[in-house]
Amino acid sequence: MTHTLILLRHGESEWNAKNLFTGWVDVALTDKGRDEAVRGGEQLREAGLLPDVVHTSLQRRAINTAALALDAADRHWIPVRRSWRLNERHYGALQGKDKKQTLAEFGEEQFMLWRRSFDVPPPPLDDDDEWSQAGDPRYADLGDEMPRTECLKDVIARMLPYWQSDIVPDLTDGNTVLIAAHGNSLRAIVKHLDGISDEDIAGLNIPTGMPLVYRLDEELKPTVAGGEYLDPEAAAAAAAAVASQGR
Amino acid sequence: MTHTLILLRHGESEWNAKNLFTGWVDVALTDKGRDEAVRGGEQLREAGLLPDVVHTSLQRRAINTAALALDAADRHWIPVRRSWRLNERHYGALQGKDKKQTLAEFGEEQFMLWRRSFDVPPPPLDDDDEWSQAGDPRYADLGDEMPRTECLKDVIARMLPYWQSDIVPDLTDGNTVLIAAHGNSLRAIVKHLDGISDEDIAGLNIPTGMPLVYRLDEELKPTVAGGEYLDPEAAAAAAAAVASQGR
Repeated sequence: MTHTLILLRHGESEWNAKNLFTGWVDVALTDKGRDEAVRGGEQLREAGLLPDVVHTSLQRRAINTAALALDAADRHWIPVRRSWRLNERHYGALQGKDKKQTLAEFGEEQFMLWRRSFDVPPPPLDDDDEWSQAGDPRYADLGDEMPRTECLKDVIARMLPYWQSDIVPDLTDGNTVLIAAHGNSLRAIVKHLDGISDEDIAGLNIPTGMPLVYRLDEELKPTVAGGEYLDPEAAAAAAAAVASQGR
Repeated sequence: MTHTLILLRHGESEWNAKNLFTGWVDVALTDKGRDEAVRGGEQLREAGLLPDVVHTSLQRRAINTAALALDAADRHWIPVRRSWRLNERHYGALQGKDKKQTLAEFGEEQFMLWRRSFDVPPPPLDDDDEWSQAGDPRYADLGDEMPRTECLKDVIARMLPYWQSDIVPDLTDGNTVLIAAHGNSLRAIVKHLDGISDEDIAGLNIPTGMPLVYRLDEELKPTVAGGEYLDPEAAAAAAAAVASQGR
């Protein structure tokens, strides 16, 4: 028996459209992003892939992507679970900054180090910065776990406990599980599932709004490495576009 | 210490707009209904009434009302709980029928008996009727509890166990609780809270999209009978309009 896991990156957000580093800033979807989410849900329905439970981050763009996709798939009524551990990577002092400006200001090497290195986080964000989440009630219980910046390694470290405690039990109970989340929290899951090295994960990009389906064996190993997009050609084109952001 | 409970009836649905009996048929909100939900959320935010947890039915119009209102209130990230026990009253063989036609066909007395009597349900809906929910996966676990028609008494009987098992614990844990549901499941809650008689509940109408706030004492009795609408004048006008439906 295999387990079915569906990963869905939120559709275009207002700051994706403006090419700003977003991280934990809680921006909304654009109309295009909403359309992407609906299309993702329609793809699930057309493929007969019906989630039994959905997990989201605590961020609006993932929450609304899940709601729109599930509504389109006629699965709006399934149980919902949410965790900050599925949030996007905290981008530290880069949050709110223009990607092109950052590239011009700091140069290609530093820019790519912050964007794609496994273990080098940007400088931390001040708690009194306008784009800080310090004081946000949804994170009030985090205490010392509340990040001020993160690298992908940090995202993996805070995501994995939730994977083990909440997602794995849903899978092993026989549920088709949908995770609606973010570029980096989903890369963290994919890295874990596919056993991708710290070096190779830099080259992995996940397109927005396109369901990525993993069939997992009894040991929760992918039966097909890298999973399968429901629309592989569109996904490949979109992933290439993600990789070129900031250029 | 008081507990805070907020009741929110879904905004206008496609079948409200067409004046059809809806019941368990899973129709969508209209644009007007979506606007009502957003406005309800804005009222919550303006009043500083911030839900810590939301309960919804398994029906699209309540689920999406909750999502839109919470997004507008900046509380989209709170825990979500859903139950069929908060569904609208099952309208039996009337589901899908025009309210005016039903009034003309069966006469005022029978019409009002089905709409407002406490304990007379309409005839049951056949499982092979196009508007039946038999076979709907969201109700697959209900077995013998799956209704084919309901009167308000039936709604109270299936709602109260969920009130006790899931809503009361959230309230007594100190949470501000939002319930996004339906005309009759909310009337069932109001009848229970305010101790309204089986006769008098017929005259109680709850308007769509307008938060109704109850402050409950330690024994979960309302400190103000009937609760308080955030916009009392608009609520009174809207309730009068509900009462005149089908005329």
